[in-house]
Amino acid sequence: MPELTDSDLEALDAADPLAPFRGRFRMPPGLVYLDGNSLGPLPGAVPARLARVVEEEWGGSLIRGWNDHRWLDLPLRLGDKIARLVGAGAGEVAVADSTSINLFKLLAATLEARPGRSTLLVEEDTFPTDAYMAEGLVRLAGTGHRLRRAPAHELAERLDDDVAVVLVSHVDYRSGEITDMAELERAARLRDALVVWDLAHSAGALPLALNADGARLAVGCGYKFLNGGPGAPAFLYVAHELQATLRQPLSGWLGHADPFAFESGYRPAEGIARFLCGTPPILSMSALDEAVDLLLEIDRDALREKSMALGEVFLRLVDERCAGFGLHRACPADARRRGSQVSLAHPQAYALTRALVERGVIPDFRTPDVLRCGLGAPYLRYADLGLAVDTLRDVLATGAWDEPRFKTRSGVP
Amino acid sequence: MPELTDSDLEALDAADPLAPFRGRFRMPPGLVYLDGNSLGPLPGAVPARLARVVEEEWGGSLIRGWNDHRWLDLPLRLGDKIARLVGAGAGEVAVADSTSINLFKLLAATLEARPGRSTLLVEEDTFPTDAYMAEGLVRLAGTGHRLRRAPAHELAERLDDDVAVVLVSHVDYRSGEITDMAELERAARLRDALVVWDLAHSAGALPLALNADGARLAVGCGYKFLNGGPGAPAFLYVAHELQATLRQPLSGWLGHADPFAFESGYRPAEGIARFLCGTPPILSMSALDEAVDLLLEIDRDALREKSMALGEVFLRLVDERCAGFGLHRACPADARRRGSQVSLAHPQAYALTRALVERGVIPDFRTPDVLRCGLGAPYLRYADLGLAVDTLRDVLATGAWDEPRFKTRSGVP
Repeated sequence: MPELTDSDLEALDAADPLAPFRGRFRMPPGLVYLDGNSLGPLPGAVPARLARVVEEEWGGSLIRGWNDHRWLDLPLRLGDKIARLVGAGAGEVAVADSTSINLFKLLAATLEARPGRSTLLVEEDTFPTDAYMAEGLVRLAGTGHRLRRAPAHELAERLDDDVAVVLVSHVDYRSGEITDMAELERAARLRDALVVWDLAHSAGALPLALNADGARLAVGCGYKFLNGGPGAPAFLYVAHELQATLRQPLSGWLGHADPFAFESGYRPAEGIARFLCGTPPILSMSALDEAVDLLLEIDRDALREKSMALGEVFLRLVDERCAGFGLHRACPADARRRGSQVSLAHPQAYALTRALVERGVIPDFRTPDVLRCGLGAPYLRYADLGLAVDTLRDVLATGAWDEPRFKTRSGVP
Repeated sequence: MPELTDSDLEALDAADPLAPFRGRFRMPPGLVYLDGNSLGPLPGAVPARLARVVEEEWGGSLIRGWNDHRWLDLPLRLGDKIARLVGAGAGEVAVADSTSINLFKLLAATLEARPGRSTLLVEEDTFPTDAYMAEGLVRLAGTGHRLRRAPAHELAERLDDDVAVVLVSHVDYRSGEITDMAELERAARLRDALVVWDLAHSAGALPLALNADGARLAVGCGYKFLNGGPGAPAFLYVAHELQATLRQPLSGWLGHADPFAFESGYRPAEGIARFLCGTPPILSMSALDEAVDLLLEIDRDALREKSMALGEVFLRLVDERCAGFGLHRACPADARRRGSQVSLAHPQAYALTRALVERGVIPDFRTPDVLRCGLGAPYLRYADLGLAVDTLRDVLATGAWDEPRFKTRSGVP
């Protein structure tokens, strides 16, 4: 197979059915952005939407905005939109709080729903905050629950009758490896265990089929592939079959059956609303709403196809242009088992990342040695990958990463 | 004493040292806004700030914004600003999550800090969500804790050695009555109990002296008198003396001692940062930051003085212009014991509120019979009060509230 040339990349871009969507984002010129899995780029329609929400809705309607602009049901309206992205039904998704907080709600609800079981089976390589939240919950509940850790691919076989809940990322944040949802849910149902899926690196990145795969509980992030902006609100999914029986402990007024009756005792709302807590952050949520509208315009199969193609091209370019520099793949070889990212291991991954950022190529570093490259299919060009890999080769070939300032860890890696 | 005339009100406005601040807010023309205690109005500088954060910071810097624009420490930087408003020290306030979530964190921490004690003493008339959160916590902790309710003025005498924590609003959301902070803290310390103050109707409304009054724990709201926008992030306060010993269960990564080390176990950060949880919502938080900057320009004693004067004038106008229509005061007569609001009781308070709103006077209704009028001293004019009370009189005198459409409860009251 001949090596990929820059003309080949241009041809791929010319044939890309998603190419028009790049213009719907504001991408700083001269930048190759491979970190949309940490913070998605700005959708072009967001500034005007936010200006309208701030100046007309907040400034003009003031308190009346809760009714007049339907702020109050934005968490569920936007939830229904996200439901379409993740293969869930209307009324199964709500937007609220942060991923961590939503995880706490669902984990707590599962422990109550599985009395007598004392194990939370937690994926070994899950994003650390997920395990921290589970730890905090167990410590608070004081019920002798314990966290047992296992690699994602062993979770199904580690299930036993003591497991109340399995906590797993659908796409591993570091390797990008996909855990088979249908398979794990089948195994969990056989043991009457519940599974909470972390969709942080899945939602908006690849088509999901929560209902079809039998998933019952999930949380997800608004600021990665959903492009909702820094610290955007998160979402949670609870399948209809479980909504009436689960109760979550962060029982704030907006999860109450009648929030404005100001009753003295808590009565959970029917449906997904019982998983809400406090007053929704309308500004942040409006940005996310606009970003999700844009994603809904994109055909999901075409998105996945391009995402896989970007990964294949990227890895091939690395093989062809960066051989001999000590880079290793740290992601599945099979595109169907990868989320929308590729990961490369290198002993100097941190310094490499810093040197690349200085040259306008923005991947991110994940400890201890992973250079993680997010592939935002709605806005990345194949030519961008050529530029990124060429820059990586130059940094490696010239030893440009080998400067003290690139090795000092500070701030967000 | 002769009745207040409209000329008297104009004279008061002419002499008002805070008058220039009205122009710093965008107030819709022709509106009298008495609901800044539900949702503060839009500070004029917010739209440009948000546009900059969205377009330049998010759009231009992307992931680098966490370092380059110091998003990562915004929760503590903004916390330090709010600390100045509430009489706390630097490093004692953090901005995060919602009021409800922050309350959960602090209540949970107090239960752990007072082992062997089983009572949460909760103010009887506290804003319902506060009690709902306490309920959810107790249910989850499963430790046999119970909520005991008492009126605010009886809390001190109800303290006994079984009380772990007292939960009380500093300013009652309905009556506006202030609970004496120093007094209750003294009583609580004698019993070795902790107190969590809800400052939702205090912060930004009147000068607070958390440190001087011996307060150790508090939560507060960003969207009421702080004017941070609909659903703005909330804050929490933990006095230095308690920070090292308290642990909260919503132990997300941003409360970790080293968030980006991605350690497998949770280690709480030093200081107030351990009360953080997930990724901060930068858009919403930037709006709040701008709003707080504006409040910091206002002399706090002058703010309180005007707030009390507004209340006195309002009540006097009601007495003089609305006598005989069945309105009763539902707030303390002594201005020093009132927050920045006046409350009036009327059997038809709901319909009255709706009829007033239609006429461009916006108070709010609080069940069962309270017409609540927030007094935003930075932007309200004395002449506004005359207009509001005249409108109220007209609605009462003509029976204009007596229409079915004003009596149907729907949406946010």
